Amino acid sequence: MKASEVRTLQKKTLQYLKKAHIAVSPKEARNIEVSDMGLGMIETCGLQLVVYENNDRYCAKEIVLLPRQTCPEHRHPARGEQGPGKQETFRCRWGIVYLYVEGTAVRRPKARVPKARKEHFTVFNEIILKPGDQYTLPPNTLHWFQAGPGGAVVSEFSSSSDDASDIFTDPLISRIPVIDQ
Amino acid sequence: MKASEVRTLQKKTLQYLKKAHIAVSPKEARNIEVSDMGLGMIETCGLQLVVYENNDRYCAKEIVLLPRQTCPEHRHPARGEQGPGKQETFRCRWGIVYLYVEGTAVRRPKARVPKARKEHFTVFNEIILKPGDQYTLPPNTLHWFQAGPGGAVVSEFSSSSDDASDIFTDPLISRIPVIDQ
Repeated sequence: MKASEVRTLQKKTLQYLKKAHIAVSPKEARNIEVSDMGLGMIETCGLQLVVYENNDRYCAKEIVLLPRQTCPEHRHPARGEQGPGKQETFRCRWGIVYLYVEGTAVRRPKARVPKARKEHFTVFNEIILKPGDQYTLPPNTLHWFQAGPGGAVVSEFSSSSDDASDIFTDPLISRIPVIDQ
Repeated sequence: MKASEVRTLQKKTLQYLKKAHIAVSPKEARNIEVSDMGLGMIETCGLQLVVYENNDRYCAKEIVLLPRQTCPEHRHPARGEQGPGKQETFRCRWGIVYLYVEGTAVRRPKARVPKARKEHFTVFNEIILKPGDQYTLPPNTLHWFQAGPGGAVVSEFSSSSDDASDIFTDPLISRIPVIDQ
């Protein structure tokens, strides 16, 4: 991604955080992480992150999604001696999020599967999160999520986070965060 | 505490969460934890909690403090085979919080030490948290905090939480949560 594109998305992210009445520090605002997962279609597949804390025991982030923006399907595998994979809790703060996990598939998902990468979305057990709703995901289970038509802000509480170890269903995806310093 | 007093404080807690634009589910609203730590002076010493998630790896809560309400001094010791004591990150969401940790004492703390239990406040390294500010506390270190004159809402991200193992400086304190079912 171009630095100018990252800056534009960082600005948009701040607008969503403002709508959600979530304050971030100037340093956090400068370090908003913007990732298109290497797919080159950020408005469709990607996400924006404010990482509040990530240590060897726990992690807390704010995830900001543009309207219909999708975090593609992935899982968090076990990492060596660090026990089971990352466990995470998604809590919707603002907007609406369609979360898909392993289990019984819905017939008509409320999310729109990104057409260009359609075959790499395989789980369709639908969980709808509105503000105040949350869902805790067991380690190493497939999941993906998409914001509703107005975008979304989602808190993620989890065990420690190491994005580099995430395994995406889509072989084209490389989870290289782009941080504008 | 009387059940009616707990209910009144739960209602007040919901008002502060509303001011902070933080949504909670009906079940979370019913289960707001109100604790006076057994001191019988809740408006001075005590706190209100919404526990979002507490599993064997991480914990996330919202702490609501009334104006000048104080969480008395305590630490989180190591618990058997579960490694070091609880590590926690306080992130101010709304209002202002005066946090005191081990280290160089300030001469004039912005918090007002509760007179009746004055001798049980021993650390005075002052950290002031406004919305968007946060502080991560190492395990097993003494700390206490007080809301500013308008009250406060603080997110706590941490390793797993076990209030029963907390060690308070004040020998009168018993951390028995009162939950109105």
